[in-house]
Amino acid sequence: MNERMLLFALDERLSTSTALVLDLPLSRLLLRDDSRFPWAILVPRRAGAVELSDLDALERATLTEEIVSLGEALRTLVPCDKLNVGAIGNIVPQLHVHVVARTAGDAAWPRTVWDAGRAVPYEDGMLGQRVRQLRAALESRPG
Amino acid sequence: MNERMLLFALDERLSTSTALVLDLPLSRLLLRDDSRFPWAILVPRRAGAVELSDLDALERATLTEEIVSLGEALRTLVPCDKLNVGAIGNIVPQLHVHVVARTAGDAAWPRTVWDAGRAVPYEDGMLGQRVRQLRAALESRPG
Repeated sequence: MNERMLLFALDERLSTSTALVLDLPLSRLLLRDDSRFPWAILVPRRAGAVELSDLDALERATLTEEIVSLGEALRTLVPCDKLNVGAIGNIVPQLHVHVVARTAGDAAWPRTVWDAGRAVPYEDGMLGQRVRQLRAALESRPG
Repeated sequence: MNERMLLFALDERLSTSTALVLDLPLSRLLLRDDSRFPWAILVPRRAGAVELSDLDALERATLTEEIVSLGEALRTLVPCDKLNVGAIGNIVPQLHVHVVARTAGDAAWPRTVWDAGRAVPYEDGMLGQRVRQLRAALESRPG
């Protein structure tokens, strides 16, 4: 384990309003507490990473495969017409990738989720249930 | 060249309001005619691709490296505080990846460009100049 892995600490603004799902080989996986959209966030556990270019090519390929696995796992949980993937970081620079399962007619469709106003938290226990479902979907995948 | 490469045709909604920059090994590179943001779009030349999972793992790794190269090329052209990368596709399903050079205080900062209203076309000749600059920046890169 190299120094950039040891020094990794999740930005507080990402841990607020999300729940921890699990650690994948590269990234910490979070689920946003927003019942409007199944909205997950991958945070590569590399201290100081802001842009994709702050990862090496192997890490980037791993991140890409984690994005794809996560998208497929989200699809098993909920109806989904389109996956939206974004690495923005204008407000929270720590490198993180949003993966959101979108359905025609959802609260922001066809616009993006990033300018869709305030989150609507899940009702009692539903966030934990979603986290367990997502973890199970990812752990049951081959490889 | 396989069938999915031969059958590729750019969606008209992507060619409208963009200029062709060049073909990278996997993707066709377009520049949006929007002077508010240096805003490029990568379209993998694979017919029928909508989600990242419609590419194979090698193509995805190539796409990721094209995103990184493009981001670095954009940075040589313009001041940039953050790159924004997004694969949305709610309106145009053909797989395409936006790579946008953002600066604090630009027309949408810190929000995303996707809900930032109407494009402001470049003035006479400036789009072509930007295209040539971007092409030169990419062609001068090693590898």
